[in-house]
Amino acid sequence: MGKKGIPEIVIERLPRYYRCFRALRGKREKISSHELAAEMHTSASQIRLDLSHFGGFGLQGYGYNVEELHTKLGQILGVDQAQYYVIVGAGRLGRAIANFPVFQEVGFSLAGIFDIDDSVIGQDIGGVRVSHADGLARFLGEHPVRIGIITTPAEAALGVAEIFRAAGVGGILNFAPVDIAPTRQLPVTNIHLTDRLLSLSWRIMHREQEQDVSRKDVCSLQNTTKE
Amino acid sequence: MGKKGIPEIVIERLPRYYRCFRALRGKREKISSHELAAEMHTSASQIRLDLSHFGGFGLQGYGYNVEELHTKLGQILGVDQAQYYVIVGAGRLGRAIANFPVFQEVGFSLAGIFDIDDSVIGQDIGGVRVSHADGLARFLGEHPVRIGIITTPAEAALGVAEIFRAAGVGGILNFAPVDIAPTRQLPVTNIHLTDRLLSLSWRIMHREQEQDVSRKDVCSLQNTTKE
Repeated sequence: MGKKGIPEIVIERLPRYYRCFRALRGKREKISSHELAAEMHTSASQIRLDLSHFGGFGLQGYGYNVEELHTKLGQILGVDQAQYYVIVGAGRLGRAIANFPVFQEVGFSLAGIFDIDDSVIGQDIGGVRVSHADGLARFLGEHPVRIGIITTPAEAALGVAEIFRAAGVGGILNFAPVDIAPTRQLPVTNIHLTDRLLSLSWRIMHREQEQDVSRKDVCSLQNTTKE
Repeated sequence: MGKKGIPEIVIERLPRYYRCFRALRGKREKISSHELAAEMHTSASQIRLDLSHFGGFGLQGYGYNVEELHTKLGQILGVDQAQYYVIVGAGRLGRAIANFPVFQEVGFSLAGIFDIDDSVIGQDIGGVRVSHADGLARFLGEHPVRIGIITTPAEAALGVAEIFRAAGVGGILNFAPVDIAPTRQLPVTNIHLTDRLLSLSWRIMHREQEQDVSRKDVCSLQNTTKE
């Protein structure tokens, strides 16, 4: 549970609401919770409950104002502020992330990218020159970096996380195949792509015995931006 | 809830157990649930409860046999079988995924990679030549592909998912910023990296008001493989 007892699952769903309202902008002015539920393959009561954690947005009999919700959800998520991130690990995954246009569109700018491989240092990735990781701590002391992204091999990840922690970086998005423990002051999101592949593999093997998959976590609304 | 009422969260945690036992192999023969709990920053009762969904593994007073658990969890996850996947979208993210050595190590082989951009068709990525997406349906009809990975822009993703569905692909791992709905016969894992960045941003903004973050989803064991 997070702030005011907001369940983690609601916090994880919040960006999806933001994404849906973002996709609706310019297409319609308002949307009822029932219409939104149909678009998102969920229930109107789920939507009202989820959004109630962040304040009372909708008006009875009117629905949600698309532009207003997009703005308010953006504020709640912090996308109204300029935020900087760095990437440590300039391999293929680091390069892919450095070039995600969506990160820029939601307010996140790449401040630096670091590696220890002399053959990539100095290269331009996503408009930023790759620096040697030896300079990471100094860089973090001189720049307001909110998020540290780790795309190193597993054996380097914990050391990089410690540099982020010591420098007071706000949070860590970790792609290395090692779990980095969050603390009260340092939220961490571990994204293990192999784990997701394996749990999908389990679902495939057991799909015939499964009950029909809940559709509540699905939003059919297409985001108009690319990743 | 999945098969036999196994909670989704347990299925999502299963690869982490597999990863931990994989990391322990060769280092020790057996481990008690209390020792494993300390390694994984969780509780022994949580571990026993999670693993009880898949059969009774541990022996009272002995603990878990590392090699046996690694093998059994691998069987449960399907990594003991050769599995093939294709990637549609040969951009930076698709290339990064095509080159993840861990996918190969857990038994998943890249069978094909597809794009619509003539300038990348014919290139070698991860040991596989990029083919034109026009040939995707025919390829799927001729090869036993278990998992379809989508790394296209959002506007192409639903069309690709429909080709996968029609061809009887086992499941979809989708990275495009659009939610693809799972069905009874077609499990889908949507991985939205921007959503994870945004929910992390929310946590950073609210960290001071938060209760101490639960550590139960953390495993300090380092995987010895690279992604």
